[in-house]
Amino acid sequence: MTDARFDVLGIGSAIVDILSRTDDDFLKINGMVKGTMALTTAEQSKQIYERMGSAVEVSGGSVANTVAGIASLGGNPCFIGKVGADKLGEIFAHEIKAVGVEFHGGENRPTLLPTATCLILVTPDGQRTMNTFLGACTELSPADIDAERIAAARVTYIEGYQWDTPRAKQAIRKSCQAAKGAKRQVALSLSDPFVVDRHRDDLLTLIKDDVDILFGNEDEIFSLYQAGDLDTAVSRLREAKVLACMTRGPKGVVVFDGQTTLAVDAAPVAKVVDTTGAGDLFAAGFLYGYTHGRDLTGCARIGCMAAAEVISHMGARPEAPLKDLLAKEGL
Amino acid sequence: MTDARFDVLGIGSAIVDILSRTDDDFLKINGMVKGTMALTTAEQSKQIYERMGSAVEVSGGSVANTVAGIASLGGNPCFIGKVGADKLGEIFAHEIKAVGVEFHGGENRPTLLPTATCLILVTPDGQRTMNTFLGACTELSPADIDAERIAAARVTYIEGYQWDTPRAKQAIRKSCQAAKGAKRQVALSLSDPFVVDRHRDDLLTLIKDDVDILFGNEDEIFSLYQAGDLDTAVSRLREAKVLACMTRGPKGVVVFDGQTTLAVDAAPVAKVVDTTGAGDLFAAGFLYGYTHGRDLTGCARIGCMAAAEVISHMGARPEAPLKDLLAKEGL
Repeated sequence: MTDARFDVLGIGSAIVDILSRTDDDFLKINGMVKGTMALTTAEQSKQIYERMGSAVEVSGGSVANTVAGIASLGGNPCFIGKVGADKLGEIFAHEIKAVGVEFHGGENRPTLLPTATCLILVTPDGQRTMNTFLGACTELSPADIDAERIAAARVTYIEGYQWDTPRAKQAIRKSCQAAKGAKRQVALSLSDPFVVDRHRDDLLTLIKDDVDILFGNEDEIFSLYQAGDLDTAVSRLREAKVLACMTRGPKGVVVFDGQTTLAVDAAPVAKVVDTTGAGDLFAAGFLYGYTHGRDLTGCARIGCMAAAEVISHMGARPEAPLKDLLAKEGL
Repeated sequence: MTDARFDVLGIGSAIVDILSRTDDDFLKINGMVKGTMALTTAEQSKQIYERMGSAVEVSGGSVANTVAGIASLGGNPCFIGKVGADKLGEIFAHEIKAVGVEFHGGENRPTLLPTATCLILVTPDGQRTMNTFLGACTELSPADIDAERIAAARVTYIEGYQWDTPRAKQAIRKSCQAAKGAKRQVALSLSDPFVVDRHRDDLLTLIKDDVDILFGNEDEIFSLYQAGDLDTAVSRLREAKVLACMTRGPKGVVVFDGQTTLAVDAAPVAKVVDTTGAGDLFAAGFLYGYTHGRDLTGCARIGCMAAAEVISHMGARPEAPLKDLLAKEGL
């Protein structure tokens, strides 16, 4: 790869997470599907928040978590996402900059909408169920994308979530064109099985035309190809000519590079506290390895290590510098 | 004591804490005195925040932490404090209500000032150094105090911090009069050695006239009486006819009831992570015990237990229900 100012440039939703422990009954009573993300209106969000117990607030957002993880590993990422001109926007910006990410929050195109929040319910099994109020994120548009900035990154990393917002989708399309025009690579996270279901055709076209690296869990990849078994999914991934990482929770990850299938075990975790950010941090570790010359096994192992750190505590951002963990594990 | 709707009613600053780990050099470079609280302007607060590393946001405020602790122990407290009409105000209100505290945030007298924040720097020794921007808290005034509500609480609990804000000080005076008029008790936390130094005469008068229970650490109580040794401080406390709790960090607490001096050891802590809230939670445990018929040793032991929980993690509010801990410890 040619020299690049950024290893990874991420474009995604800039969200502050509000995390609370709850039980399975709370999900049932409130009609939530465990492990998934639902979009809410401001009013719905307010109602859920009123019913929720004591919470902690931490910066989140899927792609934002990934770039924060890459910075924590010692990488040099950039993030583009839209925050509101409010305290949570200030907190989001502070957190992502403090960890070493170059942040572009649309300062030149301010919005009156509030910074996005995600109400996350964590059940005793460590699973997270999310209710997102997108707020300012819905204002992300092609005008926020600087093609030169995209060209300065080895990999542009995007998330399926953006397909729920028409203008953001256009911003992502513009970014993919800029990346391809500069002979850079594009990585995509499928985000959520319902997102895949809502936007299957669009995502399949994007993957065929632009995506080099694909991240998804089993549900998401099976849903994408409406596949009933692994063999069918693998053969469709081969046709799509993508490097694909299928995360499988405690069973680890399977990486397909078109020819070979590589299985890497999950890193051991003493106690799964909160799975929020597990997929995001796997992508962080994998992309860090990928942009730093590691082989696929090495990339996947760094990914598993980063995911293990983030599920051992509340919140989707690393608590300790992952760089130190990387050195300790000899990765 | 006669029947009361609340065991403790607290009046204090409604603050959201922004906690970050740092080193001693950061304090030195930024002219901060370790272990104390400094008031900042909005602009100073912004500058410190920009220099700070990654942080977590959790509800705080000294008296607010205490009433949250009392609720967590199974008590029935009330809190009066002023928040702004903004997201952090909403978060503060949610947290204190979620734990079971009746909250009066001045909804009937809204303010344009933002909710108060406290930038807390936690050094590797677990000590916390605080920089408070009071914002909406400066708007607390006698109009926010409902004398009937005060009369409905066994103990009205106030903090020395309020002496930095003229109208809040008047609100506290009104509260003390209401409590005394209803034959209820008043408890005071001295808050901070610099606060004591700034308002010594006012505080001495308040203690003499109105305070039944006094909380402070060694620095604060020594500063209050400009005492050089424990004997002098004890004799002044005896003259003031207050029940006094002098917290001494890892050395535990000394309780004086006018006649006897009682020393209770600190509860063991595997690792001191962050001392933020140690004094507040001691007061929570002590006041819970006091309003639930425990003897002074029992009160102090519950206080030490609650303090030990809060210093074993980041943030000044209990992470687990203290009621469970109380049952487990047989207190």
